[in-house]
Amino acid sequence: MQQIEHIKEFGGWLNRYRHRSAACNCDMTLSVYLPPAAAEGPVPAVYYLSGLTCTDDNVRVKAGAQRYAAELGLALVMPDTSPRGDDVPDEPDRSDLGKGAGFYVNATQPPWDRHYRMLDYVTDELPALLEAQLPVAAGVKSITGHSMGGHGALVAALRRPELYRSVSAFAPICNPVAVGWSERCLEAYLGDDRGAWIRYDATELIRAGKHFPGTPLIDQGTEDEFLAGQLQPQALEAACRAHGQALVLRMQPGYDHSYHFIATFIGEHLAYHAAALAD
Amino acid sequence: MQQIEHIKEFGGWLNRYRHRSAACNCDMTLSVYLPPAAAEGPVPAVYYLSGLTCTDDNVRVKAGAQRYAAELGLALVMPDTSPRGDDVPDEPDRSDLGKGAGFYVNATQPPWDRHYRMLDYVTDELPALLEAQLPVAAGVKSITGHSMGGHGALVAALRRPELYRSVSAFAPICNPVAVGWSERCLEAYLGDDRGAWIRYDATELIRAGKHFPGTPLIDQGTEDEFLAGQLQPQALEAACRAHGQALVLRMQPGYDHSYHFIATFIGEHLAYHAAALAD
Repeated sequence: MQQIEHIKEFGGWLNRYRHRSAACNCDMTLSVYLPPAAAEGPVPAVYYLSGLTCTDDNVRVKAGAQRYAAELGLALVMPDTSPRGDDVPDEPDRSDLGKGAGFYVNATQPPWDRHYRMLDYVTDELPALLEAQLPVAAGVKSITGHSMGGHGALVAALRRPELYRSVSAFAPICNPVAVGWSERCLEAYLGDDRGAWIRYDATELIRAGKHFPGTPLIDQGTEDEFLAGQLQPQALEAACRAHGQALVLRMQPGYDHSYHFIATFIGEHLAYHAAALAD
Repeated sequence: MQQIEHIKEFGGWLNRYRHRSAACNCDMTLSVYLPPAAAEGPVPAVYYLSGLTCTDDNVRVKAGAQRYAAELGLALVMPDTSPRGDDVPDEPDRSDLGKGAGFYVNATQPPWDRHYRMLDYVTDELPALLEAQLPVAAGVKSITGHSMGGHGALVAALRRPELYRSVSAFAPICNPVAVGWSERCLEAYLGDDRGAWIRYDATELIRAGKHFPGTPLIDQGTEDEFLAGQLQPQALEAACRAHGQALVLRMQPGYDHSYHFIATFIGEHLAYHAAALAD
């Protein structure tokens, strides 16, 4: 990894790195906040997966998360939302497919399959890299995310529960195969077999018997402009109830889909993860 | 004032307004964060003056200030950095003159003098408007700012000490007439009489006998890329010492000029202002 930025914040360091990704077959950029405690030895990490159109920059600038990470002694890992570069296929006129919109899937369909392997990237390749090169404790991590990234966090935790101590999400896309626009995105990446799509749908994974050994935490604003049409937290809640999966879904009155909503609750999410990581 | 945005954050409301400004002779946009306590009655306000190239949006998104304002029961007032609009003169190729770069002066030179009256705007017109229309306590306010906005805050407090309970600044421009680039900006707005410039220079105001009845608080990062050439906090510190003006100047090792630096210390600044405002 090449360190390309190094900014002091809350007594720790907000670093940006560039590295060659085997999973994504391109150079990837990410940010990692290392709290003051990382100067003393490895610290547990929380992975934050961002939403559509974001890069690693949005959360590090807008969420106010570093303050809590510093206080709690957590590393905060902020990956990009898709592969990048001139060689990477894109749909420049769309914000929900291609660059900035990887949906945290391992694509199987051309032209996407050569680069869009974000699930492998965030669950396997990136943790191995960070645990080898940074003061990040091996195998002690949790995951969260916003919107498309909340979907990614829930899917990662349900498919690979052994990797994560805890999972949370802000306004996640909970049931993408039930919603036309996100279903079409999954179809582009995964082909026309619905059986492939449902492996990237938190609600369908619960219905298929996947289980996370803990209590996922979800915050959802009631005034979120995407709630009615696209996010479907009630579908996930119903599936969890039917299948014995613990879940805390908090409908937050008056909040929207923005980083102002995330900023309001990210302290509670990081404290929740810190408690799980300390166990 | 027309309310053009209304976003819930930390239990309070981040609002954006547009209004006709008499001082600036144009429509102005600003943001105000109203903490939960404002639902019960008027709260004291802290004015945050932003730096070059900023609008009201940078601080509200990047500083993490709303969390502290919510906890402390403070309104946070975030004005724009210059007049705006198609009729307002500009130097589009310059980031330090014209739109986004009002330097918080009352310009006297054409073409600037018809609109660039930011000192009157932030010290008189805007407080009167907010105190009349929002749950903001009349006459109970403090002021802070970053870089050009730190300059603005110090100048406002030294010229109008009766208006403010306390003043602080992040990496302020402390002695603009001693630095070529900022001196030329003041010359453009104020003409070639140096006696006019020094009335917008915190260090020169102290040397001329101005006094703030309190202890201004300044944080300055030692790795700030503008420190050596442009900010001159040592000149201000020396002037304060020579003239009996209390000052706390904290050189913060390792910090730069960015909002990551501001985010790190804005909680302490807001707590400092809250204590002064509670007196």
